[in-house]
Amino acid sequence: MYLSDIESTKKEKVEMEGAEGVWIQWLIANKNGAENYAMRLFTLEKGGKIPRHQHPWEHEILFLEGEGIVGAGEDEKKVEAGNFAYIEPDIPHWYRNTGDGEWKFLCIIPIKE
Amino acid sequence: MYLSDIESTKKEKVEMEGAEGVWIQWLIANKNGAENYAMRLFTLEKGGKIPRHQHPWEHEILFLEGEGIVGAGEDEKKVEAGNFAYIEPDIPHWYRNTGDGEWKFLCIIPIKE
Repeated sequence: MYLSDIESTKKEKVEMEGAEGVWIQWLIANKNGAENYAMRLFTLEKGGKIPRHQHPWEHEILFLEGEGIVGAGEDEKKVEAGNFAYIEPDIPHWYRNTGDGEWKFLCIIPIKE
Repeated sequence: MYLSDIESTKKEKVEMEGAEGVWIQWLIANKNGAENYAMRLFTLEKGGKIPRHQHPWEHEILFLEGEGIVGAGEDEKKVEAGNFAYIEPDIPHWYRNTGDGEWKFLCIIPIKE
């Protein structure tokens, strides 16, 4: 068993064109033995955003703290802690922190060999 | 995008020999379009437990609320909100709620066709 905690996991700035105030922590990934999917925690600063983008892999997301807007395809929805989402592969999607503090969500992606 | 919330997701009692006070909610699974991995939320009542068992698939777990003991192989660890774990395939593992209230954790498993 690999066991750790969020607090001590390295936080990296997401360097993506148009992204603002976005941080990622890779909680469970290849380096921990995982072969099929990776668990990442995103933190968006107040006002932070991830612009519309797409890729051929899906997302499974659990919204943990704060609130924001998640968009996918033609949809745009307000979400808060307790919401979760499945975003299909190849669907354009985007995120905006609309709350007064940080917005945190867990996002699982498949690991491609 | 499939979007929902924990509150309105069906909660089912886990009927496993030796399990006590264990509930599961399938947040994201095949039925929502997911093909590679499923996201489940477990709730263990105060005193609840899942006995030692094993299977040929891994777990990726984020502990969300409450506290408990998670065991795997020769390890037994106390965990709380903010801890996360990767449990390798085929490793015997078990859980005991040792807190004063419910213990909740997210557990992702691969979807086998």
